[in-house]
Amino acid sequence: MAMKTTVKSDIEIAQASKMKPIVEIAKKIELEEEDLELFGKYKAKISSKTLAKLKTKDSGKIILVTAINPTPAGEGKSTVTVGLADAFNRIGKKAMLAIREPSLGPTMGIKGGATGGGYAQVLPMEDINLHFTGDLHAITTANNALAALIDNHLQQGNELNIDPRRIVWKRAVDLNDRALRKVVIGLGGPLQGVPREDGFDITVASEIMAVLCLATDLTDLKQRLSRIVVAYNYNKEPVTVSSLGVEGALALLLKDAVKPNLVQTIEHTPALIHGGPFANIAHGCNSAIATLTASKLADYVVTEAGFGADLGAEKFLHIKSRSAGIRPEAVVIVATIRALKMHGGVPKTELVNENIPALTLGFANLQKHIETIRSFGLPVVVAINKFITDTDLEVETLLDWCKREAVEVALTEVWEKGGEGGVELAEKLLSVIEKEENKFEPLYDLSDSIENKVKTIVQKVYGGKDVEFSSKARKQLQDFEKFGWSNLPVCMAKSQYSLSDDPSKLGRPTDFTVTIREFKPSIGAGFIVALTGEIMTMPGLPKKPAALNMDVDENGNAAGLF
Amino acid sequence: MAMKTTVKSDIEIAQASKMKPIVEIAKKIELEEEDLELFGKYKAKISSKTLAKLKTKDSGKIILVTAINPTPAGEGKSTVTVGLADAFNRIGKKAMLAIREPSLGPTMGIKGGATGGGYAQVLPMEDINLHFTGDLHAITTANNALAALIDNHLQQGNELNIDPRRIVWKRAVDLNDRALRKVVIGLGGPLQGVPREDGFDITVASEIMAVLCLATDLTDLKQRLSRIVVAYNYNKEPVTVSSLGVEGALALLLKDAVKPNLVQTIEHTPALIHGGPFANIAHGCNSAIATLTASKLADYVVTEAGFGADLGAEKFLHIKSRSAGIRPEAVVIVATIRALKMHGGVPKTELVNENIPALTLGFANLQKHIETIRSFGLPVVVAINKFITDTDLEVETLLDWCKREAVEVALTEVWEKGGEGGVELAEKLLSVIEKEENKFEPLYDLSDSIENKVKTIVQKVYGGKDVEFSSKARKQLQDFEKFGWSNLPVCMAKSQYSLSDDPSKLGRPTDFTVTIREFKPSIGAGFIVALTGEIMTMPGLPKKPAALNMDVDENGNAAGLF
Repeated sequence: MAMKTTVKSDIEIAQASKMKPIVEIAKKIELEEEDLELFGKYKAKISSKTLAKLKTKDSGKIILVTAINPTPAGEGKSTVTVGLADAFNRIGKKAMLAIREPSLGPTMGIKGGATGGGYAQVLPMEDINLHFTGDLHAITTANNALAALIDNHLQQGNELNIDPRRIVWKRAVDLNDRALRKVVIGLGGPLQGVPREDGFDITVASEIMAVLCLATDLTDLKQRLSRIVVAYNYNKEPVTVSSLGVEGALALLLKDAVKPNLVQTIEHTPALIHGGPFANIAHGCNSAIATLTASKLADYVVTEAGFGADLGAEKFLHIKSRSAGIRPEAVVIVATIRALKMHGGVPKTELVNENIPALTLGFANLQKHIETIRSFGLPVVVAINKFITDTDLEVETLLDWCKREAVEVALTEVWEKGGEGGVELAEKLLSVIEKEENKFEPLYDLSDSIENKVKTIVQKVYGGKDVEFSSKARKQLQDFEKFGWSNLPVCMAKSQYSLSDDPSKLGRPTDFTVTIREFKPSIGAGFIVALTGEIMTMPGLPKKPAALNMDVDENGNAAGLF
Repeated sequence: MAMKTTVKSDIEIAQASKMKPIVEIAKKIELEEEDLELFGKYKAKISSKTLAKLKTKDSGKIILVTAINPTPAGEGKSTVTVGLADAFNRIGKKAMLAIREPSLGPTMGIKGGATGGGYAQVLPMEDINLHFTGDLHAITTANNALAALIDNHLQQGNELNIDPRRIVWKRAVDLNDRALRKVVIGLGGPLQGVPREDGFDITVASEIMAVLCLATDLTDLKQRLSRIVVAYNYNKEPVTVSSLGVEGALALLLKDAVKPNLVQTIEHTPALIHGGPFANIAHGCNSAIATLTASKLADYVVTEAGFGADLGAEKFLHIKSRSAGIRPEAVVIVATIRALKMHGGVPKTELVNENIPALTLGFANLQKHIETIRSFGLPVVVAINKFITDTDLEVETLLDWCKREAVEVALTEVWEKGGEGGVELAEKLLSVIEKEENKFEPLYDLSDSIENKVKTIVQKVYGGKDVEFSSKARKQLQDFEKFGWSNLPVCMAKSQYSLSDDPSKLGRPTDFTVTIREFKPSIGAGFIVALTGEIMTMPGLPKKPAALNMDVDENGNAAGLF
């Protein structure tokens, strides 16, 4: 949101905001101090006892925030999500946020946090963007403990007959570290392990992150952990965590990480920030526990999903909703006039100029996402995240188009005005929820074949013509059938920039074929990842990493973080 | 302490103990809730503001607990340390503990925590032995962020002319993972980093752990971080963290880890548990900040150092005391009759039998350590950690011997009786502190040459004849002279089992020569490690790791942890 001509930066606004003690925030949602495990004055986890108790309560309404296909112009989806929850509170509704927690890797690499922006932020942003309550560290540790146990199994006689060339469990660090993408380990002779190829993913790409985010409690977490496939034996049969007998140890390492974290927005709206899996190799949503818990504590829960509606919303609705029994009441699609102009063919450098023809062309991208959400049977509202460079004519053109499409639309100015800037959006949502019938239904059945699931997504969500499967992918599907994995949902790993699998095709491409290069089974998480190309699961650092500007003074105050 | 015939295990005793809220424990040492950053109900960090404020207060008396050379029979040094602090409180003294925090690696590997035993334990032991307050995770992250920044520097043009074959900074995990000891990274082509040899240490062996434990505040921490040598350039000159410009980012990652953690013993004695560097490749003591802070909050601080007095106490007195300005009032040497019999030549299987001749032979090991502590000008008390298998005659023989050596001695039974079992020891300490003059003086000056510092330690502390330096080590000393590192203290990396560098020489070996194979400069921590042989900085897992027995129930209760 750097284009805003406001004088204050995100961190200045955040540091100038006065937080209330988290115990006071908790009172708003009828939680007492004994329901919390405090982490300092402004962060808390919700205790397991309270989480269990809440399960039997009635649920509030869940609103999913998604977006058009992202462009370098930025949409401000997180900012709208935060501001919308504040707006519900402004108009007297008891509302909460449930969003993802950031990874340290990008924070150290490229300037930018993941806690909203302007006057629609979650606090304390420094803590949330650094170690927070240690969830990601616990996941890294569990991931790497499992890796160490696998290599120790090889070293100590390999009773399970694991093929060291077919170990699929990688190690993890919560950092951007390209030199760890491909490594050889176990060098140095017979006392130093069994030499083999290995690699590191960033922690948010670990299957354990996806497992934690889909588990509904600690027992479910342990069951999912036990099903994780870590390798194949010399007979090419899957070797799982449960065959190693370490699901108990892994669950123990995650016993606190599984509890959602309570913080607040600048306007003191209670927020659960918990879990943050990749939106390509995984499903890209905050934890099911956070969303479900928030729905027991508030009447309106605003939550988001990664990337655009073709990836984030599709996975929220097909994977997370199905697995956790979540039924959203309505979906918000965030768009900006700048990004729509990019979808209409305007290069980034010329976005400041009014361009009605390009804007009109760009509507096609928004239109497809509206159609998709409607095909799920869900009410939809478009949120236009307003920028200072948007001209009146551009805004008017967009509003007119929405009218013609018979879709509700609201202008939002939450970056500058906080919740006040989201009131129109909140009111439109209340109205569609009341007026429109919610006929939520997934687009495919779990009993469909994996091939048909992929085809359904490509045709109904992306608007593509067909799907091609590589010979490797076809061979894998035969194995999956044998292993009993065909009834799992599909998790698409595709470029976020285009509805197709070609990132250069903006707008609303048609007549395209998507190629599935290979599948990656995530049996613990409970989905089959379908890869359309090379997916980066370990980012690299730029030439001048953000770390170079970071500092801390003698009192522990962060500097240069954002 | 498994030989005790008591019916309850450590974890049963711990779980049956009722903790007081940490806010209440803090009140005992005049800390209010606003001085604390709470981590749940029973753990807290002390705020930076309070740490700064305490600096100007008068200091209490610091008692160092050390031991004879460890044997497989066990000495129970940590247990005596915990029990002694409880004992001081029992006799009306305001006392505190300052001890190390455990590493997850050994916890997952070999059954056994590091929080004392029996009725002399620190609580909540499950938390302390798992993620605790995240200090070790922060250190791992800082360690690996630095590694990623170094490899990114290579990848982005290598402006500092770093020789990839001479990068000495290794990566870290807080796990036992032998397959990561020697690895090759950066494979996969020009976009995946620069291929080179690398390795992983366990986090407690990271220089950042030593840095954190010797820093006296956040400013000092940042300065020490900036001095860390990570590599050598093609001219063989050192490349430091400050030349990479990332000391600010690393200090930011450690801003909370640098604050000591307040917990309690079973008897509600306040305890600071903070930092835990290896006792061979580093100095093996809890953080200077914890010891100094405890000394401002209590009249008596009981602290310990790793391994026997030849390693732990020597490093405490030469490295930590000197660097942090700590002057201990007295030293406790812990011994058991079982371990003394092993030093006298009895195999482990025969320790249950009375054996006066072997015991008498074993006294020689204890005697050397008494002499060493006295040579530092410090009062000493021997603590006999009593076992049920010790016969009356054995005990009497030991007491008689102590009388002849004119050294104070106390029997302790803190494992079975808690603080009550350490009252005699506490009273003896009060008496020697009052009666004996404390003439504490290091055995060498910082201006001595590195060679002479090593020689002094070998001759005066180990009782050896001479030191030999390998040709590599001699060459390194010339470089150190050139780089201006000769005025640093020496950190000996030697077998803990013997006074010599040969682990099979128990008792009190004489006439031996110690060979220094090579040096490892830890310029950030501020010492030169002298390696006498291969030192393991990454342990492996056993055939049946403790992880196999670990579990957690649906309410988050740990099982099989100890």
